[in-house]
Amino acid sequence: MENRKNQTRTKETSRVEAFSDGVFAIAITLLVLELIQTLHAQPGERLLKKCLEHWESFVAYTIGFITLLICWINHHVAFEYIRKVNTTFMWINGFLLFVVTLTPFPTAVLAEYLGKESRTALAIFGVNYILIAIAADAICTYAYNHHLIDEEHREYYYSYKLIYRYAIFFNVIAFLLCFVSIVIPIILYSILFVFFAAPKEFSSRLHKRRINKKNARKNK
Amino acid sequence: MENRKNQTRTKETSRVEAFSDGVFAIAITLLVLELIQTLHAQPGERLLKKCLEHWESFVAYTIGFITLLICWINHHVAFEYIRKVNTTFMWINGFLLFVVTLTPFPTAVLAEYLGKESRTALAIFGVNYILIAIAADAICTYAYNHHLIDEEHREYYYSYKLIYRYAIFFNVIAFLLCFVSIVIPIILYSILFVFFAAPKEFSSRLHKRRINKKNARKNK
Amino acid sequence: MENRKNQTRTKETSRVEAFSDGVFAIAITLLVLELIQTLHAQPGERLLKKCLEHWESFVAYTIGFITLLICWINHHVAFEYIRKVNTTFMWINGFLLFVVTLTPFPTAVLAEYLGKESRTALAIFGVNYILIAIAADAICTYAYNHHLIDEEHREYYYSYKLIYRYAIFFNVIAFLLCFVSIVIPIILYSILFVFFAAPKEFSSRLHKRRINKKNARKNK
Amino acid sequence: MENRKNQTRTKETSRVEAFSDGVFAIAITLLVLELIQTLHAQPGERLLKKCLEHWESFVAYTIGFITLLICWINHHVAFEYIRKVNTTFMWINGFLLFVVTLTPFPTAVLAEYLGKESRTALAIFGVNYILIAIAADAICTYAYNHHLIDEEHREYYYSYKLIYRYAIFFNVIAFLLCFVSIVIPIILYSILFVFFAAPKEFSSRLHKRRINKKNARKNK
Repeated sequence: MENRKNQTRTKETSRVEAFSDGVFAIAITLLVLELIQTLHAQPGERLLKKCLEHWESFVAYTIGFITLLICWINHHVAFEYIRKVNTTFMWINGFLLFVVTLTPFPTAVLAEYLGKESRTALAIFGVNYILIAIAADAICTYAYNHHLIDEEHREYYYSYKLIYRYAIFFNVIAFLLCFVSIVIPIILYSILFVFFAAPKEFSSRLHKRRINKKNARKNK
Repeated sequence: MENRKNQTRTKETSRVEAFSDGVFAIAITLLVLELIQTLHAQPGERLLKKCLEHWESFVAYTIGFITLLICWINHHVAFEYIRKVNTTFMWINGFLLFVVTLTPFPTAVLAEYLGKESRTALAIFGVNYILIAIAADAICTYAYNHHLIDEEHREYYYSYKLIYRYAIFFNVIAFLLCFVSIVIPIILYSILFVFFAAPKEFSSRLHKRRINKKNARKNK
Repeated sequence: MENRKNQTRTKETSRVEAFSDGVFAIAITLLVLELIQTLHAQPGERLLKKCLEHWESFVAYTIGFITLLICWINHHVAFEYIRKVNTTFMWINGFLLFVVTLTPFPTAVLAEYLGKESRTALAIFGVNYILIAIAADAICTYAYNHHLIDEEHREYYYSYKLIYRYAIFFNVIAFLLCFVSIVIPIILYSILFVFFAAPKEFSSRLHKRRINKKNARKNK
Repeated sequence: MENRKNQTRTKETSRVEAFSDGVFAIAITLLVLELIQTLHAQPGERLLKKCLEHWESFVAYTIGFITLLICWINHHVAFEYIRKVNTTFMWINGFLLFVVTLTPFPTAVLAEYLGKESRTALAIFGVNYILIAIAADAICTYAYNHHLIDEEHREYYYSYKLIYRYAIFFNVIAFLLCFVSIVIPIILYSILFVFFAAPKEFSSRLHKRRINKKNARKNK
């Protein structure tokens, strides 16, 4: 049984996963080009001084990398239960990839403008996060509604897809706060990072709470 | 039976698909480098103003991304029925990959010249589309004629490959109209995008019409 | 039997092939960056004039692309018969990948210097070809001598590996002729392209001749 | 039995391996962009003179390539015995990929500053090596402690993971020596290259010595 399912999955979703993996891998590696760019900026300067002066580039690089790695981990988990793909689903996944390939741009914006126009730079990065959350929500909701997922894990997948719905609201709030503060959105984004670093553990906890609530209601 | 076919496919076409997927994934991700380039253009300017002034870059990026995503989806569908490869087929596929890797160039042309020399920029992008259509037609026609495809779906594949033959003519017309207008070719390319966004659905409809016509002729 | 062999191959060589495919795919796609570079060269110029003036870039791009595609096709054929890998083999394959990743450099040299210092530019590209031929010969000879290949096709593989030995000598001659002429090495490289575009067909013909000679000798 | 294990591996670790392979392949291929950069530096100069003057770029390219190839070979061997992955493990692997994608930066530093500030450039590259060794040690130790590896090879894997623990100390010493000498760290890094070029052979020898010592102690 397990074997049969695995085979089906290989056939239908493998090329979409391979293509997505490729896009993720390249986007995450291209970030370094922006870092190398800083080396060529002022040729006369001393190496260590130059590296220290461009600390925003290193911060932006790290943020961009963690963002894309979290995206990939979540994509990996979401696809674990997906058994079939269709044209609409490929376009929704394509929208996610669009935002993923775009990510080096707000990362470069951060590197260049974190010191100068920090609020605008952070807000542009925030738009990116909202788009990622919308894409992730769309992927999971579509797969759930159109029965592309493993029927066995349907109940769990419902809880799983909820976390991306929450993420949209969370990101919109963080984005709006970029215009009044710098510290608060940074704290909010850090909380987001921690939760979505382990989407499986996060959604499992949510799932248990939902099941418990249901049972409590039944028992009443 | 299904299993056996799947195995054969894994063995013969998988490396061609993996290599093609890699090329598609990289070409689609490299587009962002052109976008980042605009950030370094005039260092003194304010961030938002710079982003708004370079709107052509964002438009070009989106067009380039959708073009390559449509290409990949069509490549994916075309290869679903292909069971064998030979040296000639690899060269035809190589020609498609040549046009795919080239695509970031007309995209950069669009970004740079859409505001200044819109007709020439659009015409260069149009040449790219003609080449893609020719390559897609060549892949499907060769696979069909040399029996590289699944014999079961031969009848359907005939209808499928027809859509790329039509696409060549459509693209040549759109290209020629670039020299007299800007709005008409943009409308034509948008129609093209809609149809080839879902090549399976498009060709299935065509296939049904062909079957119906055939039956009608028989009944006469 | 066929099935068992296929499985073995999947396990031992698949990750080497996947990594190599990735390197080939990226190297072949990075070539376009050099082409885009020409767009940013003289900002004031008209689009078509700029494209025509930089014809060397387009020629270099095409040569670079065909070179890497031929490399990939040959790598694909060579690995078709390889069943096992070991550390030494991975380093020999690593040397080939080193030359492959280097290829965008001589391509950029061609683009920049084909009009100015054509002989030196061609000679640098020639060094690249010699290195590729040495790497291809080393891969096949090592796989043959250390029994990493399918024992069934051992006889044929001997003929196959011969073509890369010949290629080394051919490339050294073409390289030396770069210092006295421009036309002759271009003709020689074109011949090389034609033969190695279809390595399977080329080596099969060679194999038949070898078998015929053997039989003729026996019959004497 | 063998077959069953192979299947399990395919399912659980394949996407992590595919993503890692992609990142390695791209990082190793991006190195050439730094090399091409030197071509555009002083446009007026003669080709051969320019290549000879920028010898540091070629040295840095070769060092960067060998570094990443060694990393990949070691990653390949470490994953050969890993059967399961979990979220924490994906983050540890993510940290390795972070250092891998970063590697083109210290390589570019080497290319630019090897002639001018050799000690600082070497020390920055040294930090990279320390981070790689820490990441490799973390991957193997975590996989060993949390039983993600094949139980059969547990004893051997213990010896295998030891080599990365040693590598950390070795790299810290080499890094510190960068501040007093240039020749000594280069010799130390060359020794490192030789040992980690064949991690399987290196750890097997270590394993045998450990087993022999154990037996000797028993016999006492």
